[in-house]
This record gives sequence, structure tokens and C-alpha cells, in this order.
Amino acid sequence: MIDMTLKTYQEKLDMRLDMLLNESESHYKSVIDSARYSLFAGGKRIRPVLLLEFYKLFGKNDDCAYNFACAVEMIHTYSLIHDDLPCMDNDDMRRGKPSNHKKYGEALALLAGDSLLTESFGVASRTMGIDGEYVAKAITYLSANAGISGMIGGQVIDTCGDFEITEDLLYEIYSLKTSALIKAACGCGAILAGADDDSFSKVETFAEKLGLAFQIIDDILDRVGNEEKLGKPVGSDLKNQKITIVDILGIDESRQRAKDLTDDAIGILDSFEGDTTTLKEITNYLLVRDY
Amino acid sequence: MIDMTLKTYQEKLDMRLDMLLNESESHYKSVIDSARYSLFAGGKRIRPVLLLEFYKLFGKNDDCAYNFACAVEMIHTYSLIHDDLPCMDNDDMRRGKPSNHKKYGEALALLAGDSLLTESFGVASRTMGIDGEYVAKAITYLSANAGISGMIGGQVIDTCGDFEITEDLLYEIYSLKTSALIKAACGCGAILAGADDDSFSKVETFAEKLGLAFQIIDDILDRVGNEEKLGKPVGSDLKNQKITIVDILGIDESRQRAKDLTDDAIGILDSFEGDTTTLKEITNYLLVRDY
Repeated sequence: MIDMTLKTYQEKLDMRLDMLLNESESHYKSVIDSARYSLFAGGKRIRPVLLLEFYKLFGKNDDCAYNFACAVEMIHTYSLIHDDLPCMDNDDMRRGKPSNHKKYGEALALLAGDSLLTESFGVASRTMGIDGEYVAKAITYLSANAGISGMIGGQVIDTCGDFEITEDLLYEIYSLKTSALIKAACGCGAILAGADDDSFSKVETFAEKLGLAFQIIDDILDRVGNEEKLGKPVGSDLKNQKITIVDILGIDESRQRAKDLTDDAIGILDSFEGDTTTLKEITNYLLVRDY
Repeated sequence: MIDMTLKTYQEKLDMRLDMLLNESESHYKSVIDSARYSLFAGGKRIRPVLLLEFYKLFGKNDDCAYNFACAVEMIHTYSLIHDDLPCMDNDDMRRGKPSNHKKYGEALALLAGDSLLTESFGVASRTMGIDGEYVAKAITYLSANAGISGMIGGQVIDTCGDFEITEDLLYEIYSLKTSALIKAACGCGAILAGADDDSFSKVETFAEKLGLAFQIIDDILDRVGNEEKLGKPVGSDLKNQKITIVDILGIDESRQRAKDLTDDAIGILDSFEGDTTTLKEITNYLLVRDY
């Protein structure tokens, strides 16, 4: 059921993304190829689907938010390209294929990431059929959650920090590096639909919990996942001497923590009046996923 | 005269930038320090001043455009940080100081660039006192000129391309890598002020010519400039085996070309009804500058 729902969304999102980042003959074609290589590498499109579902939850039944949804996916993709670079996590594989810099070289990978990030805000700003004030407010929220006190801040602590890793600090890192962009997706859907403050605050709490659960499952899969399904070697955290929640709580307790966070998230969805069936399915799916 | 005008602008812009990218105690303080290191390295703030002057030219006499002006400067700064990286131009010095990655390491330099780019659009979106539709339109224009078919496209051809360099291709590179962001600055000023289509088109032509003149002077200074004033070694183009307009036309003819472009640009300014005194002074100053 959720597979079908996601597939329908994915096809529509892929068509829009294809149009927004079109192949073209030019002297700078190589960077478009490089950006498209990562953008169409088989991502699950979870973030744009969350944006669209929250947009719908607050009463909007049109396609106006698709551009914004694609913008969030472009930002997610840029972050993966830059994270894989040698000066960061130095990962050679991503989704069963060579990572961007392994395929296109470091310079093009850097510029493809910069391109996706730059173009994403242009794509978001070309959101038609929604009041300009709402669009501007959603761009502010997207930038804040993708920026220094959001996703990038998380990367900084994770990759460049020299701190003693405690459970609390890990939650701060996960909140920034993973929850923040999920918050951007859910929150922008709500902002574009004109959700009230109370609802918006619940959306943020939902996204925070979903993001934490998502990252914990990621950490577990990096330890005990199936390499073929994951499309990358397991044990990369160990290789990079990166302490994760699994080191602190163990596999079973980490899984329980993800389960509790998922239950909390479902509880928040239950408190909304509209139809949250798909949102619940996604939330549960992210807990039991094996890649 | 122009020195005083620029200085007044610089002080006001620096105050705003300081507020927008504030030092703060956090686990990710290092990336803020790194971004601020480059943002306050003594840039001339030409692009934001152009934006503000065009905003004024079309009849607006308030401070509403300052955020947007700072956003353009943040994008300019990110591009310098990423351009200096080892996988790009591999430059050790910038404005008389170690380049960002020499001071903070590659990972933080990458993330500082990503931060400035991400935050810039958030800063632009928080433009108060101007209609949301104008703000969204200006963000679209900024993204387009900073993106793939703008500044980044120019970097791609310049750094990753394997083309036979002709005079025509050089002009294409200069137009993309240098004129595009100057066009973004001038054009966003006009868009935010609600300029009509005819005027906007003249603004674009002005910016195109100013950008080309600017890049030609840069190329000349890289060959015959004063290292101390420039704050970086001359001859970096030769070191990087980068063919510039100087190799094709020679110094004198290149200087004449820059002079002609400057005259054209001044001619366009003459065709506007409002006060273009400062814009003319900046245009002339960029031709005779020695750093």
C-alpha cells in the first residue's frame, strides 16, 4: 500500500525534477550531468512526499507545492554529494553506485552540489498559485533548517568537531543533521498551506521525532544492514571512528528508542483532524525499512 | 569622493552583515568563525552597493533592500571560498591573508561556503517592507544568475572544461563567471524597486558590460599588478595554465577593451532619468582600480 503511494509520488516528483534540472547542450553540460546523476540515483523522495502530505493535511488539494517539494529534495541531494567528498566522510559508494566525486571528480562534485543548492531556492521561489508572503516565509524556514543552526551545523559537529560524544550531544547532532531537513519539509508544507501556529508547532515536534527515529535506524543499518540492499558498505561509521547511538545503547535498545519515537510521532498525527493515513504509513515504513 | 561614498556604504553593510551572521556560542561555532573570516576579509562590497544604488535609481529611498544586498555579498563570498579550494584553483592567499581552507581546513571551508550560500537565500527572503511577489521574483533572478546558467556555469567551463579557448569562449566564461553575479546585484535592485521592463533590460546590459570590464581588469592585474596591494601573488593564471584575455589581446589592447566597455556602461547610465552620479563613479573606479 505505502509502496504504491510512494511510487505514484516518486513518478510525479521525478517528472518535475527532470523538467526543473533539464539536460541541455552547453559548455557547462558536465555539471548538469553530475547533478542529475545524484538527483536520479534512486532516492526514496521521503522529504518531498512529507511536504506534499502536510500541504494536503492543511486543506490544499492542488499541485502548487510541487516546486517547493522538489527544492527540498535538491537540498537533500546536494548535502549527500558534499558529505561524500574526500575532505568530509570520504565515501566511495552511494545507493549502489560510485559517489558523485568518484564518477565526476572532486571539482564537478563540489560544483554540482553548489548548483543543486543554488537552484533549489530558485525553484522554491517559482512556486506559483501560493501567496508570495507564504513563499517567502517558507524560504526563510527552509534556509534556517538547511543552514548553520540546522543541517550544516549538524555536519560541523559530526565531522569537524572534537567533542566528547555523550548521548545528549548525539541527539543534538541527529536533531541538526537529520531532523532539521525533515522539519523543513514538513514545516514548509504547513507554512505554504497556511497552517495556524498551534498546528505548526505540532508539525515541528512530529518532524523532530521522525528525524531522530530515522537517524537511529540509519545507524543500526550501518552496523547490521544488508550491503546489497543498502547500496554501500556497512561499517562506515566504525571505519570513520564515528560514535553513534548504537555504541552507546546497543542495537536492541537503539531499536526500542526508534520504536518509541515512532509511536510518539504517530500519536501527534492522531491529534490532527484531517486524513493522516499516508503520513502514518510513511512513519511506520521508515522504522521497518531495510535500506 | 567615491572612496567616501563606498566607505559609508561599507560601514552600514558590515554592521548589517555582522548582525545577520552573528558570532554565537554553540557546538558549531567553528563554521560561523570560518564564514565570518572570509566575509569580513576586506571585500570592497561593490555588488551590494550596486544593488542599493539601482534600488535608489528607481525611486526607493528606504533601507528595505539592505538584506538583499547582504545576500548577494554572502553569495560572492561563498564563491571565493569554494574557488580557492584545492580541487578548484588551489589558491593559498586571498586579500593578503591565508585563504579559508588554509586557515580552517578543507572541511570547514566547504561547509562555510555552503553556509553562506544557504543563509544568503534566507536573508534575502527576510526582506521586509517590499511586496512578497517582488521578493520572490528577485530570489528567482538571484538564483538563476548565481546558478548553473550563471556564475557556476562559468566556473565549470573555466575550471573543469577542456575546450579550445577562443576570444568568444572567453567572453562567454567572463559573462557567466563574473557578469552574472553583478547582473544579479543590479537586476535585483531594479526588481525590488519595481522597475519597468525597458529599464530592467538596460540595467542588464549595463551589468553585462561592467562585469566584462571588471574581469578584464582582474586579468590584467593578475599579470602586472602589485602583489602587496592585491593581497595575493600575481601570475596565478600563468601558474594554473589559465588562458585569459591578456594572452589573446595583450595588455594594452585588453586595457582598451575594458575602457570601451566602461564607456558603453557609462552611456547606458546616461540614458536613465534619475541620479546616476555614484553609479558612474563606481563604474570608472573599477576601471582604474589597482586591487
